[in-house]
Amino acid sequence: MNSRTTSFSVSRPQLSQRPSLSSRLSFAVSTAERGEGRDAPAVERIEEEIAEIKRYEDFNTIDWVQDAAQERLRRKVRHRKTAGLFKEGQVTWRYKLWESYDAAQGWIVVTLIGAVIGLNAAFLNIITEWLSDIKLGHCTTAFYLNENFCCWGEDNGCDDWVHWSGFEPFNYILYILFATVFALTSATLVKSFAPYAAGSGISEIKCIIAGFVMKGFLGLWTLIIKSIALPLAIASGLSVGKEGPSVHYAVCTGNVISRLFDKYKYNASKTREILSACAAAGVGVAFGSPIGGVLFSLEEMSSYFPLKTMWRSYFCALVATAVLAAMNPFRSGQLVMFQVKYDRSWHFFEVVFYIVLGIFGGLYGAFVMKWNLRVQAFRKKYLTKYAVLEATLLAAGTAIICYPNAFLRIDMTESMEILFLECEGAEDYQGLCDVDKRWTNIMSLVVATVIRVLLVIISYGCKVPAGIFVPSMAIGASFGRTVGIIVQAIHDANPTSVFFSACVPDEPCITPGTYAFLGAAAALSGIMHITISVVVIMFELTGALTYILPTMIVVGVTKAVSELFGKGGIADRMIWFSGFPYLDNKEEHNFGVPVQVVMTNDVVAIPVHGMALQSVEDLLSQPKYQGFPIVEDQHKKVLVGYIGRTELRYAIDRLRRERRITISPEAKCAFSPPVLGAVTPMTPTVTFSNADFGMSSASVDFSRYVDATPVTVHPRLPLETVMELFRKVGPRVILIEQHGRLAGLVTVKDCLKYQFKVEAAENPREDSDIHERHERVWGWILIAAGWVSDKVLSASGGRIRLGSVSEEGPLGRAPGQIMDGDEDVLDDEGGVELENR
Amino acid sequence: MNSRTTSFSVSRPQLSQRPSLSSRLSFAVSTAERGEGRDAPAVERIEEEIAEIKRYEDFNTIDWVQDAAQERLRRKVRHRKTAGLFKEGQVTWRYKLWESYDAAQGWIVVTLIGAVIGLNAAFLNIITEWLSDIKLGHCTTAFYLNENFCCWGEDNGCDDWVHWSGFEPFNYILYILFATVFALTSATLVKSFAPYAAGSGISEIKCIIAGFVMKGFLGLWTLIIKSIALPLAIASGLSVGKEGPSVHYAVCTGNVISRLFDKYKYNASKTREILSACAAAGVGVAFGSPIGGVLFSLEEMSSYFPLKTMWRSYFCALVATAVLAAMNPFRSGQLVMFQVKYDRSWHFFEVVFYIVLGIFGGLYGAFVMKWNLRVQAFRKKYLTKYAVLEATLLAAGTAIICYPNAFLRIDMTESMEILFLECEGAEDYQGLCDVDKRWTNIMSLVVATVIRVLLVIISYGCKVPAGIFVPSMAIGASFGRTVGIIVQAIHDANPTSVFFSACVPDEPCITPGTYAFLGAAAALSGIMHITISVVVIMFELTGALTYILPTMIVVGVTKAVSELFGKGGIADRMIWFSGFPYLDNKEEHNFGVPVQVVMTNDVVAIPVHGMALQSVEDLLSQPKYQGFPIVEDQHKKVLVGYIGRTELRYAIDRLRRERRITISPEAKCAFSPPVLGAVTPMTPTVTFSNADFGMSSASVDFSRYVDATPVTVHPRLPLETVMELFRKVGPRVILIEQHGRLAGLVTVKDCLKYQFKVEAAENPREDSDIHERHERVWGWILIAAGWVSDKVLSASGGRIRLGSVSEEGPLGRAPGQIMDGDEDVLDDEGGVELENR
Repeated sequence: MNSRTTSFSVSRPQLSQRPSLSSRLSFAVSTAERGEGRDAPAVERIEEEIAEIKRYEDFNTIDWVQDAAQERLRRKVRHRKTAGLFKEGQVTWRYKLWESYDAAQGWIVVTLIGAVIGLNAAFLNIITEWLSDIKLGHCTTAFYLNENFCCWGEDNGCDDWVHWSGFEPFNYILYILFATVFALTSATLVKSFAPYAAGSGISEIKCIIAGFVMKGFLGLWTLIIKSIALPLAIASGLSVGKEGPSVHYAVCTGNVISRLFDKYKYNASKTREILSACAAAGVGVAFGSPIGGVLFSLEEMSSYFPLKTMWRSYFCALVATAVLAAMNPFRSGQLVMFQVKYDRSWHFFEVVFYIVLGIFGGLYGAFVMKWNLRVQAFRKKYLTKYAVLEATLLAAGTAIICYPNAFLRIDMTESMEILFLECEGAEDYQGLCDVDKRWTNIMSLVVATVIRVLLVIISYGCKVPAGIFVPSMAIGASFGRTVGIIVQAIHDANPTSVFFSACVPDEPCITPGTYAFLGAAAALSGIMHITISVVVIMFELTGALTYILPTMIVVGVTKAVSELFGKGGIADRMIWFSGFPYLDNKEEHNFGVPVQVVMTNDVVAIPVHGMALQSVEDLLSQPKYQGFPIVEDQHKKVLVGYIGRTELRYAIDRLRRERRITISPEAKCAFSPPVLGAVTPMTPTVTFSNADFGMSSASVDFSRYVDATPVTVHPRLPLETVMELFRKVGPRVILIEQHGRLAGLVTVKDCLKYQFKVEAAENPREDSDIHERHERVWGWILIAAGWVSDKVLSASGGRIRLGSVSEEGPLGRAPGQIMDGDEDVLDDEGGVELENR
Repeated sequence: MNSRTTSFSVSRPQLSQRPSLSSRLSFAVSTAERGEGRDAPAVERIEEEIAEIKRYEDFNTIDWVQDAAQERLRRKVRHRKTAGLFKEGQVTWRYKLWESYDAAQGWIVVTLIGAVIGLNAAFLNIITEWLSDIKLGHCTTAFYLNENFCCWGEDNGCDDWVHWSGFEPFNYILYILFATVFALTSATLVKSFAPYAAGSGISEIKCIIAGFVMKGFLGLWTLIIKSIALPLAIASGLSVGKEGPSVHYAVCTGNVISRLFDKYKYNASKTREILSACAAAGVGVAFGSPIGGVLFSLEEMSSYFPLKTMWRSYFCALVATAVLAAMNPFRSGQLVMFQVKYDRSWHFFEVVFYIVLGIFGGLYGAFVMKWNLRVQAFRKKYLTKYAVLEATLLAAGTAIICYPNAFLRIDMTESMEILFLECEGAEDYQGLCDVDKRWTNIMSLVVATVIRVLLVIISYGCKVPAGIFVPSMAIGASFGRTVGIIVQAIHDANPTSVFFSACVPDEPCITPGTYAFLGAAAALSGIMHITISVVVIMFELTGALTYILPTMIVVGVTKAVSELFGKGGIADRMIWFSGFPYLDNKEEHNFGVPVQVVMTNDVVAIPVHGMALQSVEDLLSQPKYQGFPIVEDQHKKVLVGYIGRTELRYAIDRLRRERRITISPEAKCAFSPPVLGAVTPMTPTVTFSNADFGMSSASVDFSRYVDATPVTVHPRLPLETVMELFRKVGPRVILIEQHGRLAGLVTVKDCLKYQFKVEAAENPREDSDIHERHERVWGWILIAAGWVSDKVLSASGGRIRLGSVSEEGPLGRAPGQIMDGDEDVLDDEGGVELENR
């Protein structure tokens, strides 16, 4: 029986010291270190199996130290293998081909991913435009053409494109209906097929790139549903943008495609590189801003961004944008829907107004974040079951409110294009450039700003694909334009004032469009707390080279104001809100305590020899342990290694699977890491050497799975340094060792728990108050729902219960509910995550 | 006597266990931990004194872990101090003011530095322009005006600006003379006052930011001399640029100014932040590209670039560029000497030619790096004594060669401006846009390219302030323009070809200027191995928004080609060449060995108790030890801490200084780190507790200076992980500990030595060959020098020996020689650095 499963036998020095184990046969001993390449495939297979298991351990974190070690071993094994297969002088062209393929694989994967992202973006752009236009009218030549294509070559509409009717109220109703149907479809798709496709996804991706495992979040279904539901959500007129989801589908693409290649399948750190690159490409295609995308990935998405990743991101964004440019979805030769050129330069006195814009950006960000988080909390508590209904009602409401306002009715991107205009030449929209309509415009813009802010607060986070970049920019643009028009009015009233002395007489001095542009930058920076990327994105979006200094000033002021209201943009706040174990690298802590304050003292350690298999399995059955330190004996606790829960579980399962004789629960387990000569190279986590037994009295050897060199620190090391280690080197657990003895164990969650405790002590919150308010709001909603339901019931003479959207009524439907249950699990698990270690 | 120096006494738990030390009195016990803030100033003072000493330990590396720990302690002490001084409810306005000043200090410093950098840049620009113009002619209205200011408002020269004479050969000679005198002055200034002002400084600053101490490199003298010598060097016409030096003077400014503030004086990590920010500002003002500067700092300069540093860099670059813009040195309202706008877009078929440009960039970089390093080696070996003569002769030679060629004669920046032109409208230079002169132009450009490449190879590294950005860009531009003209010619010859089908008939299709632009980007990327920063810099330089994809493609190809010829740009190569202990973060190693292969085994450790003072001093007298692990006893070697050489030295000196009675050399030294309660917060490196003695038989307690928590790792940890620790966490030394026992010690240099050994084994070099060739070249130079000297001697009838430049002749002069001696020390030390630990 043994002969079937073992490939060869190696006597291992320290094992032979134990006389009781005479009939031992150890299979697949850490061969890579011993120079025998023969059972390298076995090592690789076990590696891959464990990697596979780990991938499916949801809500877990990746140990980057182990991952790097495994990758190094894999490379070495491959090197040996190929060296063995192709001896010196016998290098065939096939080997050469294989080698170059292997080296080029990374680039091939990135190119492929970039191309798919670019294609997908082009497709999304075309669909979104068509859906947005169909709300207002249709093309008589061919219904599948949007207004631009229908009226090809003409600037301001044409006869082929007709509104649905000449009767305005009917158009209004049709507009609302379309919006509602789009939102309903989008939300239903998300709820039924891929709950993870809801929202922007940026917070989650940040955590995933940092090493948190979320099964399915980057899966094929999420990709497909996000790609279909996104155009619907945007076309529904909800105050949501496409860039967050754009990052999400780009990262999904990267994950799905890279999984097809061996190089990425089992290597988390290489995958992380790809995911960072995809995030860059996602922003790159959303804004037509490849460099901005790379910087966004660097500034916002990636906790670890070495130059190599930057280079991959650069390449991925380049390919994606080039493909998008080649597809030319807007038929304008441009990457973005709008591109503005400012001919006039700015004056130094305008800096005063730029500072106003910057302050607005900061306040906007702080205000929206505060209230949006409250809405999110409310949503999580009361609306989880009514996700589809909520999105649908929101879309209907948004359509009803927005249609009357000229700047809210049209697409947000379009409205930005209009607001950015320089007012040179003929282009004008609704008399925006008209000096006589100045006060009407200001009123209209202020209304648009206020309504949009409220809509963003309640819409962002609802269960359709939804970003917050473009809505924020649109708000900033309408506010900025307001300021610009006011400044222009002041200048027109006092053209000879000393303040305006820099203006050239009889020439337009103030360009309100540039204020809109700067306002957009401020709002974007305020909500996301990013700086460089905003400047570059705005720059790539418009090519306003002369406005680089004003943009920098505005963003700088915004950043300074934002910091007064606490750290972290909306993505970071969402991470805390969801309770993901993410160590922020933006914050600088000064706890002034050693790690021993935070560590778990009563660590369950496994002795090197003598623990019964039954006891080991008992330990494993307790889900709260993610791994066990190995000590020389339970009293002295001299640390010799560490074994992960996954590895141990796998080893035991494998044992059961491969040996059909029953192993006695009394069998003793051995965990001694292999002793090697001083100079022999070795890699720690993979010093595998497995199982030998035969009778019930035999012992089981788990040495193979023991990590001989876990990361250890002294108990007095400052907590800040330990957190830095977690952040920069990335182990899953750090053991605390004093004079060679195990003193404790610390995880990221222990650190985060302490951090939250300290922060909570510093800023106590009044949760009960919020709770009460939530209850009251929910009460009103129920009353309103009841009233509407009654009205509909009576109006339809009892035939319709709860109106046209009632099929998703307050009682909810089964299929979606299960998915939402999943979602709940995520949230709960996220919370629980912080509890166990 | 004791009462004078001690402030209070604390009985310390573990000390009282030793009965022999009854009359102990420990002063300045780690008070911060104990909550008594009374002698906090003493702690701070000692800290500062040690920091002061460390600053002056030349060619040393900074321990970032210790630095962070010290900063945390300092903050806590300050916090306690202020909390003690101002009790709750008694917060005065003065305290508030002081607190806000303290918080704002960072921003005040950065603003100040940015403003000074901007002013300096404006001043430099004006001087450089004037000096460059004076070579060709002068202003008749006022000699101190350059051509632009002299002919204010006119485009192509005016009558007020006249050439030196109407006789062309005389102008030629005057041109050469001016160039020679400028170079002579520049080189003499550098040699006499600040040898560190030579070269670009980028390599050294990289090392300094990474933690290497180079005394005086960022000093006031270097700043002054670099600021004066730089315009002279550029005006001399040498093939050198201003951006490298621009980074250097910016960083000097930052260092000099931040030294004036307490917050930065003693904190290396905060200073590092400022230096990174200054590097960004330096590139920002050199190119008028603030964002490009930040990215350059991120991509090239800084080994550690957290978001906080990015934000500081952003702000610093913003202030510097805004000041420069307000100064408006070019009177064009622009930040840079040139700004191009391309009206025409590109076609997809042009990608073929873009790839050619990209390949050129890669080859150019590899070629120049290889040969420039050989020239540098030659210079180091033979020309160190003749630095001034070399620079002068180079300038004269450059002037003689360059004057006849239309593209080499003018300033490099000016020539780039011309080459970038779109050839729309009237602007033309030397018939560059003229279709008839096409082949003349191609010839002229090819000659310019080749000569410039050769000049760059021999000029970069000569002992004047000299950068390589602009020369590289100029070379790329002339090559690119050549390609552009050729492509245009092909198109003109086959306008109907399928290949050119994307061209609109009867409209100009190919814009050679854009090829020049892309060529410049390629060459810059090729020589520096940077990507994103090049794209953004080119972008900010010209505002060519539509060309962002082509730029990215070209730079991408260049990067790919460059990597075939080895890693690292010229700055990295210079670091290896100079032997600085710099761990590159661009490379990924795969040694496959544990750290025990690299570590020093026979570490000299100090026992906790019992070593005689004399023995300790003997150890200190050996310069090869930078610190000593503390072990429980010499046999078992249980590790308890680490003490740095500087701290130990300081402690002994302080002992001697403060106690006037002689301490017996037999006095026993105690090094036990203080034991604290498990929960008491503490910071490791500053667990001070000093000296108690009185009679010759007493013991001296150095516990105060012992670092209780040095960074330790297991001997089997892979070397790659250890290098990662050095890079990311930044300790100066890592101790190797197995089961609580000291097994060895490893430093960055140990890792680098191993790395070089492995690399040398992989790519053996034939040094003897190079050596021989060097000898031969030197022989020729001596022959030529002899011949020239003879000629001059005979021509002058024996009155002049060695011609007009002979005052700096082969025998050299004393003042410079001493300085060069210093320089030699640097190089030697750099080499030696790697030998000891």
